[in-house]
Amino acid sequence: MYSNSDPIRRLSNYRRVLCKLRALGFERFVSDNLGGALDISPAQVRKDFADYGLTGNKKGGYDVKDLIEKLNNILGKNELQKIIVVGCGGMGKTLMGYNGFAGEGMKVVAGFESNPAAINPAAFIPIYDLNDMPDYIKREGIELAIMTVPESAASKIADILKGCNIKGILNFAPIMLKSTEECIIRNINIIHEMENIIYFAGKMH
Amino acid sequence: MYSNSDPIRRLSNYRRVLCKLRALGFERFVSDNLGGALDISPAQVRKDFADYGLTGNKKGGYDVKDLIEKLNNILGKNELQKIIVVGCGGMGKTLMGYNGFAGEGMKVVAGFESNPAAINPAAFIPIYDLNDMPDYIKREGIELAIMTVPESAASKIADILKGCNIKGILNFAPIMLKSTEECIIRNINIIHEMENIIYFAGKMH
Repeated sequence: MYSNSDPIRRLSNYRRVLCKLRALGFERFVSDNLGGALDISPAQVRKDFADYGLTGNKKGGYDVKDLIEKLNNILGKNELQKIIVVGCGGMGKTLMGYNGFAGEGMKVVAGFESNPAAINPAAFIPIYDLNDMPDYIKREGIELAIMTVPESAASKIADILKGCNIKGILNFAPIMLKSTEECIIRNINIIHEMENIIYFAGKMH
Repeated sequence: MYSNSDPIRRLSNYRRVLCKLRALGFERFVSDNLGGALDISPAQVRKDFADYGLTGNKKGGYDVKDLIEKLNNILGKNELQKIIVVGCGGMGKTLMGYNGFAGEGMKVVAGFESNPAAINPAAFIPIYDLNDMPDYIKREGIELAIMTVPESAASKIADILKGCNIKGILNFAPIMLKSTEECIIRNINIIHEMENIIYFAGKMH
């Protein structure tokens, strides 16, 4: 499901390679062969750079730091992206503790739960009552949510989030929720991923 | 990333609707309007039924139970699909305990870890030493793995799994691993999902 046909993924990968170049001490890079390690053609790299205004190619090449800065702007990495997690069961708690967010300018700021036993406002990342979520979203200006609720609750919770003007949802509930004009939703369905794998693995016998 | 353009996803969704029909007491269904609730056109449903040999439309309609049986065969639900989890940190443990597998004919039978402190052969789902994985895979005839290892270990672990003739891998490590002729790999990258959401959510301001 991940492929280089996703432009945002390509930009993210360019950024990752550029950050590695910077870490290696490179200040400029001259080739448009950035896509080599990423299996992306030079033509596609040039097109992406044109499409997303990644200019600045001079005789000495692109300025690595400048390009990273431009990519950070496009990918929203220049401001902290605050995320709430709705549904603090096993998957929710795992994502609240996911250490991959920090280096990417993302932070889970709170969790929300309907089960009283799981509510814990004193936790390092506080878990609040689901009923308090709309107020929290408004007060803290939250725009992003990860949904790890049971399938039976998913539609209702998504509607509540949309009603609170949440702009983006990553949904782990095993039901496909649709994006609207005001809210982009991406669905991760582990069962469907496994079904795909099992189907194609079965063909290999 | 989930869309109705994925045929296996469509088959899985047909199965889900048919199981609900069966639970409601329906033995036959006459319409090809199966796709209605799923946003799939009747033409696509007919094409899928033809492509995957889902025959049996008679005057009284399709036999619901028979269709479910055929779909179970296609989707590999008629035999228990044994899965191992490689990397038993937070995400690995969460997936080991994921209760969505049972109803879908899937079962996590063991976890594997390199960290001695996490190894626990006595656990309900045992966690073994990573070094014992190749023997286990061979002995138990395992073909499916979920990888929840750090990025730095992902390529090496994938190579080991391929070397053990694992046929399908669901990879949660934040690195895109490629399928081969012998092994299908699907990648779930939470950071990339969030980057996509942040990008499009940012456009809504």
